[in-house]
Amino acid sequence: MKVFVGSPGSVSGMLLRIGQCLFAAGSIAAMVTAFGFSNFTAFCYLIASMGLQVLWSFGLACLDIYALTTKRDICSPVLVSLFVVGDWVTSTLSLAAACSSSGIVVLYSRDLKFCNDPSQLPCVRYELAAVLAFIAWFLIAISSHIMFWILASV
Amino acid sequence: MKVFVGSPGSVSGMLLRIGQCLFAAGSIAAMVTAFGFSNFTAFCYLIASMGLQVLWSFGLACLDIYALTTKRDICSPVLVSLFVVGDWVTSTLSLAAACSSSGIVVLYSRDLKFCNDPSQLPCVRYELAAVLAFIAWFLIAISSHIMFWILASV
Repeated sequence: MKVFVGSPGSVSGMLLRIGQCLFAAGSIAAMVTAFGFSNFTAFCYLIASMGLQVLWSFGLACLDIYALTTKRDICSPVLVSLFVVGDWVTSTLSLAAACSSSGIVVLYSRDLKFCNDPSQLPCVRYELAAVLAFIAWFLIAISSHIMFWILASV
Repeated sequence: MKVFVGSPGSVSGMLLRIGQCLFAAGSIAAMVTAFGFSNFTAFCYLIASMGLQVLWSFGLACLDIYALTTKRDICSPVLVSLFVVGDWVTSTLSLAAACSSSGIVVLYSRDLKFCNDPSQLPCVRYELAAVLAFIAWFLIAISSHIMFWILASV
């Protein structure tokens, strides 16, 4: 199996996973510290989706660290197929969560102008959570494409 | 280059493109006939994104029909690379548009209960537009994965 930048068990792959984990955790932190988030289904969904992202990326980061320390090859077709499916599902859910949240943020800040008075809604925190979710999605999309390329080029 | 179900220049590929075109056009039709859509940035973005989807899928459907009638092979690496990039961009934009619109639909119907009185907002049409956009995204995601697989397995 060919080895690319970001493949499972490589340093770049591990850094990608850690980045996904950090940005997803940052998005959750920004959202749960924002007052009134629980009134919005999309914001609760963002937290659930980013939680799944953290679990998935943290698990794979641990696997990468294990492969790097024991110098074992974890690029078997069965494992890569599992990574492809998991990465595709989490990346789609992350993009969906980031977009539905930013749809509401744009509605409140641009269409309804509810964010002009900062005491009403913590819009800056909602925006920060959406931006961090987009960055986490971008990193998982990179991982997802690398995995799919590795699987297809076997 | 290997030939799969849904490859460019095949009957299944052409049917996929026509399906994408029809569902995206249906989503635009449902949205533009819904009163007050222009007050929402996300709904305007849905129309723009689905418009791009219609143009892209219609162009590729025409190319498939041309390849089928003249029996020419259009699976060259350069063309497939172009299809991969175009499919990836349109599928990401379609999913983003479908999710941001459905985020607002869920906010109005579930969180704010604005849809209980149908005279206020045409929620059914908004929901229909979002569902059709999700189906169009699902079809373009299939095409996108087939193209990526063809390119990677060269």
